[in-house]
Amino acid sequence: MAIKVNGDRLWSTIQDTAKWGGTAKGGVCRPALSDDDRAVRDWFVAAGREIGCEVFWDELGNVFVKRQGKNKDLPPIGIGSHLDTQFTGGKFDGILGVLCGLEVLRTLHDQGIETNAGIVAVCWTNEEGCRFTPAMVASGVWGGAFTKEYAYSREDPQHLRFGDELERIGYKGTVPCDGNVNKLSAHFELHIEQGPVLEDEKIPIGVVVGVQAIRWYNCTVTGQDCHAGTTPMHLRRNALHAACVMIDALNSIALRFSQGVSTVGVIESKPGSVNTVPGFCHFTVDLRNPDDEVLEEMEKEAEKELAEIATRLKVTHKFERFWTCPATKFHPDCISAVQKSVDALGYPARTITSGAGHDSVYTAKLCPTSMVFIPCLDGISHNERESAEKVDCEMGANVLCNAVLHFDAQLASGKK
Amino acid sequence: MAIKVNGDRLWSTIQDTAKWGGTAKGGVCRPALSDDDRAVRDWFVAAGREIGCEVFWDELGNVFVKRQGKNKDLPPIGIGSHLDTQFTGGKFDGILGVLCGLEVLRTLHDQGIETNAGIVAVCWTNEEGCRFTPAMVASGVWGGAFTKEYAYSREDPQHLRFGDELERIGYKGTVPCDGNVNKLSAHFELHIEQGPVLEDEKIPIGVVVGVQAIRWYNCTVTGQDCHAGTTPMHLRRNALHAACVMIDALNSIALRFSQGVSTVGVIESKPGSVNTVPGFCHFTVDLRNPDDEVLEEMEKEAEKELAEIATRLKVTHKFERFWTCPATKFHPDCISAVQKSVDALGYPARTITSGAGHDSVYTAKLCPTSMVFIPCLDGISHNERESAEKVDCEMGANVLCNAVLHFDAQLASGKK
Repeated sequence: MAIKVNGDRLWSTIQDTAKWGGTAKGGVCRPALSDDDRAVRDWFVAAGREIGCEVFWDELGNVFVKRQGKNKDLPPIGIGSHLDTQFTGGKFDGILGVLCGLEVLRTLHDQGIETNAGIVAVCWTNEEGCRFTPAMVASGVWGGAFTKEYAYSREDPQHLRFGDELERIGYKGTVPCDGNVNKLSAHFELHIEQGPVLEDEKIPIGVVVGVQAIRWYNCTVTGQDCHAGTTPMHLRRNALHAACVMIDALNSIALRFSQGVSTVGVIESKPGSVNTVPGFCHFTVDLRNPDDEVLEEMEKEAEKELAEIATRLKVTHKFERFWTCPATKFHPDCISAVQKSVDALGYPARTITSGAGHDSVYTAKLCPTSMVFIPCLDGISHNERESAEKVDCEMGANVLCNAVLHFDAQLASGKK
Repeated sequence: MAIKVNGDRLWSTIQDTAKWGGTAKGGVCRPALSDDDRAVRDWFVAAGREIGCEVFWDELGNVFVKRQGKNKDLPPIGIGSHLDTQFTGGKFDGILGVLCGLEVLRTLHDQGIETNAGIVAVCWTNEEGCRFTPAMVASGVWGGAFTKEYAYSREDPQHLRFGDELERIGYKGTVPCDGNVNKLSAHFELHIEQGPVLEDEKIPIGVVVGVQAIRWYNCTVTGQDCHAGTTPMHLRRNALHAACVMIDALNSIALRFSQGVSTVGVIESKPGSVNTVPGFCHFTVDLRNPDDEVLEEMEKEAEKELAEIATRLKVTHKFERFWTCPATKFHPDCISAVQKSVDALGYPARTITSGAGHDSVYTAKLCPTSMVFIPCLDGISHNERESAEKVDCEMGANVLCNAVLHFDAQLASGKK
């Protein structure tokens, strides 16, 4: 039988802790390693100790609130996310995942449930990457994607170093930030969807099967500036018009591939005069697909169609990839634990692929990982308007709690 | 029989006078009412007096170099253009028209030809409008489009007033700047095409039949910002994509109407992040056609198609006209005089409509007017690279000279 968390307590915790960095518009401004980040960490440490947990933090300031299990030989099961926010962030992105982790520990404590492996709620440092780039840097060090020294050397816009700021707020620990040393048996993460799919389909739970692959490109188009009045249409080499035809083609390419998305977020054209045909245009392209091979096909189609358009419209172009992030496939055991939890609770759910990156992308490199999504208002995040329903938060925490217990039971049975 | 100007003298004059404001790259920087503008005017006045002409300038600084005719009762026939340039202008735009006017007077003087009406070479003040907006302000006052006071009150970017600067360079005259007082029987203007049509068709002379109508618009498109990774294509309201489809449609509209042109010269989209679907886009639209009624139809098509695209792509839009310039039809007598001149000289020629505005647009309001175009390199003007062939300049001046003589003969015969 599925157990349930205390939804009222979870909701109060969300509202109460939003005071650290709380904004006039109801959002949260809590950049990594700020005084507000320290304050919410201090509260998290105290809340963990209050229910008898062991608390420690590693060299990157990742905070582990650990409830012991019966079997001391098994690495604990992690429930993690982050407590830092964007500069104009909301109350849910990341925060909800850590607070649900704590709520799971509180529920196990209240109900006297003894698990096989330990269960640890984790606050990963600097997921957002808005003060110190890149994003997800501390889970990245844990997962082996970056070195500790690289992370320490990152500077904020005021040239304050990550390492110095971590020390200043008192969270530079001595436990190695290394998933091969400070191990986890698995990692589960609950997060708001940050997109409109669940809300649009009126489904409260997303069983996240992976994080889609991303590729970023710059495209420049060169034609010839000329006078808008004196140059007949057939003698033009209009860079902006060619770019527009290319952007429409990129949109159509995404529609032709299942689950593909294509976005042009930035466009500039020169010389930028009402009565001059633009001779130059630059735009960015973001292509994504849950499947690396399908994304490769999308890229090939884009290359082919852009070249055809350039030839037809008498311009030259360059289409250059400058960033690649391969797809993450979450672990079947973790996905199955979440699905069993959903089934036991009888909640409407669907499988979903995350469009955005999360700490779980890096934990997945070293341990079985998956995620749970809940809907958020209008699919909006990284915004003070970010919002989620109390009932959805509670249902999500219930799914998380039982998924962890399912995985723990599987660990106990020795099946991997 | 057609008479011929002195092509070598004309070419020398073009090269010699380019020293006033001459740039390192071979262009000319001679904004209206600058010291260089004064210097070239002083030279023009002296050159006119040297061949026995009467020289005067009006309240707007328009300089008239007048060769007397037999019939003192007839207003003179004007040959005008301008000696000012853009900040990074060339040696030909406007300048060529005034120097060809002088070359016609010199040729009549050399060959002792007595005309019926007087012939006057005119330098119109501040055609370019780059230092003092708007463009063609002094021919505009002469033609009744602006008041003298309006022109005097115009300020340059350093807040120097047109009236003060005109006085400072010594060209604020007392002759009324009023085409109903200081009359012309007709106005002819030779100009580089500023477009690629003649060069493309390898035709040295354009018989200009009018100046096309122009309408300018702002278009704003509003959708919804959203995450490039988490928002499926069918749930997007992508303002930039919709704008691109609109821009392609505007291009197609121009292609469907004879001699229509459509240009989007400025585009901006927000918020301008690689991984955010833009929720807002603004672009400008410039529609032109030689015929006002056809332009009206082009506008109606644009309104209809943009609205359809907005509905289909789930965005809202505003398409607002903010400037209208009706078509100018040049006078049949002047067009016919140019055509007769071309025929007599045996030059290849075609009729053409000017895509850009000229002083002749305003003279046409008060007297029969037409223009002669010659090719320019790559259709480029308002640029230090601006260039024209010596042979084309000479042929253009020959056409201008004989056109004036044809019109003068017609005046003498009493036919209007």
